[in-house]
Amino acid sequence: MHSLSAPITAPDATYYQQALSRQAQLTKPPGSLGLLEDCAVRLAAMQRRAMPKLEKIHVSVFAADHGIAEEGVSAFPQVVTMEMVKNFAAGGAAVNVLARHVDAYFEVVDVGLLQPVALPNVINHQAGAGTANFSRTAAMNDEQLTIALAAGRSAVERAVANGADLFIGGEMGIANTTSASALAAASLRIPAADITGAGTGLNAGQIDHKARVIDSALQHHHAVLQSPLDILKTLGGFEIAALTAAYISAAQQGLPVLIDGFISSVAALLAVGINPGCVDWFFYGHCSAEKGHARVLQALNAQPLLNLQMRLGEGSGAVLAVPLLQMACRLHNEMATFSQAQVSTA
Amino acid sequence: MHSLSAPITAPDATYYQQALSRQAQLTKPPGSLGLLEDCAVRLAAMQRRAMPKLEKIHVSVFAADHGIAEEGVSAFPQVVTMEMVKNFAAGGAAVNVLARHVDAYFEVVDVGLLQPVALPNVINHQAGAGTANFSRTAAMNDEQLTIALAAGRSAVERAVANGADLFIGGEMGIANTTSASALAAASLRIPAADITGAGTGLNAGQIDHKARVIDSALQHHHAVLQSPLDILKTLGGFEIAALTAAYISAAQQGLPVLIDGFISSVAALLAVGINPGCVDWFFYGHCSAEKGHARVLQALNAQPLLNLQMRLGEGSGAVLAVPLLQMACRLHNEMATFSQAQVSTA
Repeated sequence: MHSLSAPITAPDATYYQQALSRQAQLTKPPGSLGLLEDCAVRLAAMQRRAMPKLEKIHVSVFAADHGIAEEGVSAFPQVVTMEMVKNFAAGGAAVNVLARHVDAYFEVVDVGLLQPVALPNVINHQAGAGTANFSRTAAMNDEQLTIALAAGRSAVERAVANGADLFIGGEMGIANTTSASALAAASLRIPAADITGAGTGLNAGQIDHKARVIDSALQHHHAVLQSPLDILKTLGGFEIAALTAAYISAAQQGLPVLIDGFISSVAALLAVGINPGCVDWFFYGHCSAEKGHARVLQALNAQPLLNLQMRLGEGSGAVLAVPLLQMACRLHNEMATFSQAQVSTA
Repeated sequence: MHSLSAPITAPDATYYQQALSRQAQLTKPPGSLGLLEDCAVRLAAMQRRAMPKLEKIHVSVFAADHGIAEEGVSAFPQVVTMEMVKNFAAGGAAVNVLARHVDAYFEVVDVGLLQPVALPNVINHQAGAGTANFSRTAAMNDEQLTIALAAGRSAVERAVANGADLFIGGEMGIANTTSASALAAASLRIPAADITGAGTGLNAGQIDHKARVIDSALQHHHAVLQSPLDILKTLGGFEIAALTAAYISAAQQGLPVLIDGFISSVAALLAVGINPGCVDWFFYGHCSAEKGHARVLQALNAQPLLNLQMRLGEGSGAVLAVPLLQMACRLHNEMATFSQAQVSTA
């Protein structure tokens, strides 16, 4: 686990100040581009560039199965995890369409399907054949956790090798909102009912059942739910562990990250718990309709770019926000200054 | 004014139902793409296409000066209207950068600068040398109103002739949040203080002054503030009249419209007051930080796509939302169905 705690360099303060100063000179009332100004200035500081750019976008979707699915906590059958991996490989899922629109590099990583799929464009990095049912036992053992974390780091290594300007992680795993809700409840020390939502489409009674399954597991594992890594091992999914390590690794390598929805944000929360400096490298694509997302974003002090009542995962809400960040850069780089355009100031 | 009341055909109900049915078959939990699903389905109905598309985007920015600027209601000097028109013509303003990013056709129309600018790429459609100061007299006369309305219609005619799939109107005019606040207060029959905001950057005392100027004008003109066209003539700006007519005209010609910020939304409110059917053809780019915008959007029953604390105008918040609508279309058109991808349903 040593690499998780390796130091993270903060974005550059000089480039930050220089970019702030440029924003004040552009032909617009000060602050009138709102959150886009902050995005451009932060990216300049991260990239150590006067003119930030987001040309190469890297999207890694991590997929894994969950033992907790046995408890009847999802609206969809477990086989859908594998079926959707095939759909990602064939380019038919929402995240594929969005990745094509922003010309992103796209890959899907099997971190632990029940049965591996034999497809040339699915990266095999299996930590196990699904996690164990965490209502009874820890979701994974130490070796499995190590492999799942390594899957996230490997994805970031590929992104860096490809010259990526931005890393986006996505996830797929039937029952993974149950795992994420349990992780969030344990991390934030709140009851499951405060954070448990409909996932792919549960009704009110099914959501109550899901929250009871989580609270019972939190009670069962109470003594071992101490550090973020303990929590991740006990309640996590392999794909959530991969995301957690990917976010830390990206920050360690100075690669900006765009976080997606509820599950990705829970991984971000764990990442910040493990290595707090990584938070400086995060942007947040959206606030989803999944009940717990707003609460987790609040804990991260996040300002999401979109709020479109989405609840799909896969990285979709993050990829959707890419054009906003790209336009924030172009506004910063291409707008005329008051003096260039000979426009009077206030 | 006859053309303003010409009938508007509603978007096609059969294409609407067909698109709804397709959304239910795509490989995602039902409803999980949130507002994007609604956008794609509505566009299919407007375009009478099974597969909606947004390739050609037409952006017309209308600029005009305001007599009410004499009352000290803006943070910027009046000459900035003309200076920004030159900036638009040179491609240096925020809306230019955004229009380039989405490959939109861009034009700027002078509907009434104090002094016309002699630039080949500024369309001259002057209704007058700025409006009159509405604190004392009606902002424009009947002839001027007719010309300003025609400027909006002409822009839509050019958009239709160019084969546009979407119309965006922008505006520039020092003091035009004062005009827009007065128009909104008169239309919604609420006190100016409920809707008057900082515009380009007033402090609290200056906002109070601005609201008092507006309330005093509303009282002065009380007897004539009856129909939306009376209100527009008395308190309006030439660019706001142009936007109002453009929105109605686009709806009459079956061209979808993407509304920008506070001023554009006030024009949309007036347009709906004049010819209610046009509302079915509107999308809303964003909710801005300008105080009155949320109130006007509420009156329009609008669901804006973005909320980034922007307050720039120019059409910027609408152009920024274009990629969201484009991705909504592509998701609708390109995602695999459950049966195509052999994915199990809930």
